[in-house]
Formats: sequence, structure tokens, C-alpha cells
Amino acid sequence: MHEPEVDVLITDGCVICLDENNSVFSPGYVAVHDGKIVGVGPGNPPEVFGKNAREIVKSTGCVVLPGLVNAHTHAAMTIFRGIADDLPLMEWLQKHIFPAESKLTEEWVYWGTLLGCAEMIAGGTTCFCDMYLFESAVAKAADESGMRALVGEVLYDFPSPNYGPPEKGILYTENLIKEWQGHGRVRIAVEPHATYTCSPELLRKCRELANRFEAPLVIHLSETLDEVEKCRSDYGCTPVEHLNRLGIFDNHTIAAHCVHLTDEDIRILQEKGVYAVHNPQSNLKLASGVSPLPKLMSSKVKVALGTDGPASNNDLDMFGEMDTCAKLHKAVFRDPTVLPARDVLALATINGAEALGFQRVGRLKEGFFADLIILDFRKPHLTPCYDPVSHLVYAVRSSDVRDVMVNGRWIFRNGEHITLDVEKISHHVKRIASQIKGS
Amino acid sequence: MHEPEVDVLITDGCVICLDENNSVFSPGYVAVHDGKIVGVGPGNPPEVFGKNAREIVKSTGCVVLPGLVNAHTHAAMTIFRGIADDLPLMEWLQKHIFPAESKLTEEWVYWGTLLGCAEMIAGGTTCFCDMYLFESAVAKAADESGMRALVGEVLYDFPSPNYGPPEKGILYTENLIKEWQGHGRVRIAVEPHATYTCSPELLRKCRELANRFEAPLVIHLSETLDEVEKCRSDYGCTPVEHLNRLGIFDNHTIAAHCVHLTDEDIRILQEKGVYAVHNPQSNLKLASGVSPLPKLMSSKVKVALGTDGPASNNDLDMFGEMDTCAKLHKAVFRDPTVLPARDVLALATINGAEALGFQRVGRLKEGFFADLIILDFRKPHLTPCYDPVSHLVYAVRSSDVRDVMVNGRWIFRNGEHITLDVEKISHHVKRIASQIKGS
Ligand SMILES: [Zn+2]
Ligand SMILES: [Zn+2]
Repeated sequence: MHEPEVDVLITDGCVICLDENNSVFSPGYVAVHDGKIVGVGPGNPPEVFGKNAREIVKSTGCVVLPGLVNAHTHAAMTIFRGIADDLPLMEWLQKHIFPAESKLTEEWVYWGTLLGCAEMIAGGTTCFCDMYLFESAVAKAADESGMRALVGEVLYDFPSPNYGPPEKGILYTENLIKEWQGHGRVRIAVEPHATYTCSPELLRKCRELANRFEAPLVIHLSETLDEVEKCRSDYGCTPVEHLNRLGIFDNHTIAAHCVHLTDEDIRILQEKGVYAVHNPQSNLKLASGVSPLPKLMSSKVKVALGTDGPASNNDLDMFGEMDTCAKLHKAVFRDPTVLPARDVLALATINGAEALGFQRVGRLKEGFFADLIILDFRKPHLTPCYDPVSHLVYAVRSSDVRDVMVNGRWIFRNGEHITLDVEKISHHVKRIASQIKGS
Repeated sequence: MHEPEVDVLITDGCVICLDENNSVFSPGYVAVHDGKIVGVGPGNPPEVFGKNAREIVKSTGCVVLPGLVNAHTHAAMTIFRGIADDLPLMEWLQKHIFPAESKLTEEWVYWGTLLGCAEMIAGGTTCFCDMYLFESAVAKAADESGMRALVGEVLYDFPSPNYGPPEKGILYTENLIKEWQGHGRVRIAVEPHATYTCSPELLRKCRELANRFEAPLVIHLSETLDEVEKCRSDYGCTPVEHLNRLGIFDNHTIAAHCVHLTDEDIRILQEKGVYAVHNPQSNLKLASGVSPLPKLMSSKVKVALGTDGPASNNDLDMFGEMDTCAKLHKAVFRDPTVLPARDVLALATINGAEALGFQRVGRLKEGFFADLIILDFRKPHLTPCYDPVSHLVYAVRSSDVRDVMVNGRWIFRNGEHITLDVEKISHHVKRIASQIKGS
């Protein structure tokens, strides 16, 4: 008889599986071997697991769930966090963000991304989708952090401080794809910025490249009314219709924001299987509006959740984002039953993993990758606990995260980073911030 | 020459005063003696302070600011936190909250309030305004916690599990006022529930009692459309007009919610100097709507901020509430300049203190009571720091609070409670929760 090997056995916690049956085992166990989940169930683990486990993590009073997936961000923008707020969008971009970004270097992006990873990991996020400049540094930082990530260089019709003239962007992305091919945990997407910054020609080239390497395509879509109006005036249709006509949606597409949509837009997103990423806090803070998320969901559009960048949020806190998401739409739709906690937790876990194209991620289920987090619920603000799923959405804070595992490896344990030297990273980011401010 | 005595001297932190000049001293110092602030200023403290200080608290990398004021809550409802969510309002109230509350005892309220105080203190809240049943237990709990509080028994036209028949409510409140007269830190308000639960006669009696003892009057006001419609059908006017005609606003009144208001309502609130307390997260979660807060502010209505009860939020986190408040109205008003961070921080500090009638509270200023908090900003999610006020509203989490002082006394120090035994309180609340669930 062949006995199972177990690297890590988590016992005595409340296990929220996010599986097809909405299983909650309280208490339950999770057994991990070779990066994957080899057992999940209620009560005490089978004796054979305990006997062979290299590490047993007793989690009394704790909740175990899949790691959160931040499906849209610009992690390196931590270096601009809070540099300017409460300003008109164009003033914010043109007087503060663009001038600061014009001096961007690969080194800034590297440290900024590491800082973002440190914040995300400590807040229970195990996987993210990134769009920014110098994404080779983002891929490197994500890899070093131990997180799972889909990253891609932002492409547009102007010269880039990274790859130079616009025509070199596609080549830069192609090289990035080749460099990271087969990595599994860090993957590359093709990422045109938006319809108002990318010509139809560039967009078509992006689709072609993405098809050639079976890479997802990531784009900002219908974030503001201005964007929609510009598209109508330039192309006589909405941004969704425009991209659809260009064939952009013919393969795996991840569209951030999706705030201003017509019924026809929603129909197209559903029909083409586009993943719409909701970024409620950023959409509020920049006064973009509120995405009709419940309508997207009832129309069977695939949706996920993200924070957007820390310059427009100003954090990378997926627990805060879930809380805002669950509450906001209830008031907008005048219906307190809209977006119950369970649905919002799915947006931030399994839905995000599926949107980013990571298979067997986002649930606690045998055969799935062991991307999981453990939260300590023995806190005044989580007492009493009638329903752990309600608490996860409406009461938990990032600081309740105790342990974080990706691919079966602990990257945060007992509140301490394992992969990242936070002091060193903070030191470098402060140096960068003083360069930004001093100029 | 008379040298100043100093109990506590806080040095090397960034001091955010919330005074009339918006002073920010980075670094700065705060000197405390006999419960009051005896010195605040930039740079190093005058030598004479340091020489005489009994305790010096070096706060490098930290931010010092006035304690937050939660201007509307029902703290004891921690015992019902998350018991039922995402339900229609009437089902939530009638099937879950009311049946649970029917069994309420003074002992439940006592432990529930202590738990709420523990959460509030750890989250930087030093002062709160409470409405619930068995408020003698709330006053006792608030006193023991060391917090500053304005509390009052909820009054309405039905029998109460506390004082019995409705006519005894006024007497109960009068006795409570007399019992706590002169306490200073814990004060009593007269608290009729709302226009739809209180007869004009009861409301007039409340006003008369409040006048007799110069106590504030606290009431829920225009929270839902149903409430406004019922008032129109019962009295032919809005709840604001109704209370105004009854003379309720003729003296210090604190009105929670103020979501559904006509222009005439806003004019009345301004003219009568009513304090409107904004509870954005509860209003979203219960699908009540969004208060026109920026309009109230531009109309010079006095406003403050609160969490409402933990059964409809589901936390008592004023940092989360500030974040939601600052972002939400930008989207509603399609203007990112609405409610800048500085204004929102004022809502949660000096405005709240003024609303509750606590004088010389809510600023760091000589002669003010020493109600202050110190936050540790040496965290990834607060790095870099271009503007500490932006971080306080958009990036800080409750868990960043390191120290809390009320009336010159530490009640939370280096992340540990001083006045409250959290383990004991949690134990009792869990026992209560199992009684609630088991019934
Ligand atoms: Zn974005
Ligand atoms: Zn209330």
C-alpha cells in the first residue's frame, strides 16, 4: 500500500473551500504536498495524513481559505501613493502622475512592485494581474515575492520610457513572453492600455501576438464617460463595440473597470466571454462612476475584483475592496440582497483565478494548487462569529492575515514575511520617493 | 519662576493638530499634564518640558492626531455582528434582530458594549455616541473602558425590555442623567428612536427633559425612503419638518443618517444648528441610499461621521468609514475634488466632538483635553508618505494604531489594551452568542 506524503497539514481551523458545493468545514483540515492540495475535509484529518505530515499547523480559532486574487492593479505605483489626491482627473494625471512617471526607471518599478507585493501578501492576496511600464522588473519582483502573477507591459501609441518608440512595444512583450514561458507561477499578458490611447492597428497587433502565444490580453475598458464619448466621436460606437469589431474579444480578454456600459455592451461581453474586472474604490475615488456589477452578473458576464493601482485607491487591500463592493451595489440598486457575501468572496478568489487564466487555483480542493491563507479570528472585531463568510467580507481587516502559502510554499508566516526583506524594500522606496519629490 | 509639570511628552512624531490653522508639525511634540494638552509645537520640545516630563514617548515614524469620534453607534450590537446579512430590511429586523433583541438583558448589553469599546479603542476611536437599550450598562462599560461617551436609552411608543411601559422611559432617562451628572467623560443624552416609532407627545416630552438638564437630544432621521413616506402620510410633511414643527430642534440635536432630504429640510437643519451624523457604510449595506453630504456641507449644516451599529456595518472602524466617506461622494457627485481628505478627517475628529457637545475635545491644542492617538506609519502600505493626512483617510487601517490616550490617560499602549480584559470580554460575548443562537 502506498501512503500519501504530506508537506503541510493544517488542522482545527474553519476551512472555507469556495468549491462548487460552497463547502465550509468547521473544523476541517487541508493537506498539502508538492505544491498541491492533496486532501481537504471536515473534522480531524485521516490518521495517515497526520502520521506522514512534515509540518502540522494547528489553526484553532482561525479561518483557512483560498488566497485572494487582485485581478487588476499597477503594483509599482506604490511609489506614488498619496502624492496627490482629491484633484480633477486631468490635473492629477498631467500635473502629478505623468511628470513623475516620465522619470520612471526599471529600478523604481522593481522596488515599487516589491513593496506592493509585500502589502498584498500581508493582506492575504496571493495572485495579481499587473499592467505598467518596465514589466520585466515586475515579473522579476513577483517571482522573488513567491506570488502568482499575470503581468504585461502597457502598450500605447506614444514613446515609452521603457521600450522607446511605439513600434518596439510588441517586440518587448514578445521577448517577455518567451523569457517567462513555462514558468507557471509568473505569466505574461499582452496589454494595450485602452481604446483612447491605442490605434486600431496597435490593438490588432496585440491580438495577433496574444493569439500566437496563447496569452491573455489585458485592457482598460469603459472606465470614464469621457472615454466612451471620445470613442463614439472617433469610431461611432462604444469602446466595447469598437474592440469587438476589431476582433480583440475573439480570445481570452481581461477588461478592467467596465463602468459605463450599454445593454448591447453587456451582451457583447457575455457573448465573447470577456472577463470584466471590477475596481470599485478606484472608480469612486476618481469619480468615474459605479459599474453595474449586479447587472453584469445577472447577464452572466464573467467578473472578478481588483484594487486598481495604489495611486488611485490608495491601497492594495482586497478585504477593503470586498467590503466596498458588497455594500456599494446594495445602495445603488436599492436592494440589500444584492451581492451577498458569498458571491463577493468568490469574485475575489475563484473568479479572479479563472479570469487570469490560472487553472486549478482559487479553491481549496484536491488537485488544486496550494494557494491559501489563514486568518486569526480571535479578535474583538471578529467576535462573536455566526458566519465566517460574512466576517470575511464585512468585518475582517488585512491585518487579520496570519499565514500565506502559494504553490505549497509559505511566503508569510505568523505575521512575518519570508520571501521579502520589507525593511530593505521600504528603504529603497523612500529613497525613490525623495527623488520624485525633489524634482 | 514656575516650571510646567508634564505627565507625558510625545516627541519626534508627525503631529496633525486639526486646529484652525490645519497645523501639521513634522516632527513635532505634544505635552500632556493633568488630562490636558499643555503644549504642542514643531521640532523638539522646549527643554523645560523634557526636563520635567514623567514619561517621554519617542514616536519616530509615527503620526499623532486627535482620537476619532464615532458620532453614531449602537455598540452593544457587537453581540449580533454578522448574525444575518444581505436580507431585505424588514426580514432582517423582524426575523433576526427583533427576536434576538426581545431576550436582551442588561448583562448582554454590558459585555457587548465592552467588546465594542475594545474594538473602537484598538481602532483609534476615543469617543462615541451610543443609542440602545439598558444604557445604564453602556454608561458603566464606557466609563470602565476609559473612553469618552455620550449615551442614552432608546425611547419609543412600545414596551421596552428594559424600563417596561413607554411612560417609564422618560423617568429612566432622567434618573440616568442625574446619576452621571458632573462625570464629564460619560454623559447622558435623551434619545427618542425616530419619527415613525415616537408619537409627537413622546418627542415633546423628550425635548422638555433635554432642555431641563441641558442634555443633547439624539434621534434617527430620514434614514430610509419608507420613513419619509410614512411621515408624509401620517403628518403631511417630511420628518425634518415634523420635528421642526414640534420644536425638537430648538436646542442641541444630533440626527443620525439624514439620507433623504429636501432642499427645505437642509435649510431647516442649517437654520436650527442640528448636527447631522453621516453613516455611509450602514446606509449602503442596508440599501438606504447615500446622504447628500457635500450638499449639507456647502449649505453649512454641521456634520459628523459614525459607523452605526456593528449589526449593519459590520464593524466599528472609523478609518474604514473615513475611506468610504471620502470616496463615495466623489462618484455620486462626479467630482474627484469633493470631500478632500482633510475635510473627512475633521468630520471624524473635531466635528464629532462638537456634535456630541464635548468642548475642548477633537484638536491637539493647548488647553484641550488630551484625547489622542499615535499610529505607526512604518508599514509597507503607508510607504512612502508624501502626505500623512491622505494616508490617514485613504490607506491607514485600524491595526496601525499603536497608542490611545483619553483625558491624559493611556488606555491602549503598544497595541495592548490597558483598561479592558479582552479575553474575558470575548469569553462572555461568545457565551451570549451561543445563548442567542441556541434559542
Ligand atoms: Zn488601471
Ligand atoms: Zn442607528
